Amino acid sequence: MEQQKKFYSIPTLRRLPNYLRELKRLRDGGMERVSSPTLAKALRIDAISVRKDLEMIGMTGSPGVGYRTADLLLGIERFLGWQNASEAFLVGLGEFGRALLAYRGFDEFGLRIVAAFDETRRDAPESSLHDVPVFGLDQFPHLAERLKIRMAILCVPDDRAQEIAEFLVQCGILAIWNFTSPTLQLPDGIIRQKVNLAGDLAVLSVKLAEKLKNEPA
Amino acid sequence: MEQQKKFYSIPTLRRLPNYLRELKRLRDGGMERVSSPTLAKALRIDAISVRKDLEMIGMTGSPGVGYRTADLLLGIERFLGWQNASEAFLVGLGEFGRALLAYRGFDEFGLRIVAAFDETRRDAPESSLHDVPVFGLDQFPHLAERLKIRMAILCVPDDRAQEIAEFLVQCGILAIWNFTSPTLQLPDGIIRQKVNLAGDLAVLSVKLAEKLKNEPA
Repeated sequence: MEQQKKFYSIPTLRRLPNYLRELKRLRDGGMERVSSPTLAKALRIDAISVRKDLEMIGMTGSPGVGYRTADLLLGIERFLGWQNASEAFLVGLGEFGRALLAYRGFDEFGLRIVAAFDETRRDAPESSLHDVPVFGLDQFPHLAERLKIRMAILCVPDDRAQEIAEFLVQCGILAIWNFTSPTLQLPDGIIRQKVNLAGDLAVLSVKLAEKLKNEPA
Repeated sequence: MEQQKKFYSIPTLRRLPNYLRELKRLRDGGMERVSSPTLAKALRIDAISVRKDLEMIGMTGSPGVGYRTADLLLGIERFLGWQNASEAFLVGLGEFGRALLAYRGFDEFGLRIVAAFDETRRDAPESSLHDVPVFGLDQFPHLAERLKIRMAILCVPDDRAQEIAEFLVQCGILAIWNFTSPTLQLPDGIIRQKVNLAGDLAVLSVKLAEKLKNEPA
């Protein structure tokens, strides 16, 4: 059987949550239809990009009439697979991991953190944090298998990141959201997104210092 | 006076915190000298890139001897301006803003959150959260001016992001670390770094769904 290669653009994918937010606002305001220029204005892009974005996920509007708000909402949620929340395990309960657990906003994006793990809790009794059950990392293989979890949020200390990421992949994890600094060396097929806060801050600090130096006092 | 145009590479800047981490580890282990291959191995890049990175910030090693660990540490911290902590205001105390305030790890990267602001606290009495004083947004202009704060961490609701970012810029903010989804339209000179968690998750979800669909069950 020939595999269908799907095409999608990363910038479009990254904009989809913005469409969802705007469409929910319109729906809640009783707007049954929406035009591409309206969406374009809300998202601060041009109307042609809006039409292209929505075409990519298989939605086309009617000329002069636009899109049905409810259809668009459902279409985007379906495309993202967000009608059924994505499930993920969070690994590493240092300060940042705990902060992410405390943050409930992921629900809105259809992400459900099913359980959290920490190396230092090996052999610790089961417990929970912000209503999410917490386990030692030794429980990861068993639970990943049983619950068929394929996505992990990695918040471990930087010097443990590579080794633990390899372990997660051995346990069947296919997508890693990496909040640690190191760049992970993993098999090609593993899906990765990286949030490098220390790196961001380095860029901001140096550019700002440069700017202040070059400015008249 | 002619202004000196400084050259720096963004990937190098983003790696500098990783160098710092490794150099601190080596220093604490009593290693007075370090070679580029050693650093290369720790950072999972090649030794030539290490030498180039360190040259960019004005550090050169001696052939066969390497670098003095303490000199490198100080050199990188100086370059990043991290001997004196960068100071920033955090704006927006929704769930994510509060999670960031709870996260103490920024200290390590030389970032000090001096105060936090929230629109909804206008006219509220002064208070504090995780030892950081909290003010209504109406206090921002006065405090930014008095404390000469130039960096803001933006965590407001998405539909308030653009307007509040413009307000911050009017108050003298020159660098914005944007944790909201919208892309901000701001004057050219304003320095920006964006962390788009909803966008990251959209990319991860779609790629993972695609992968699972194409895999034999």
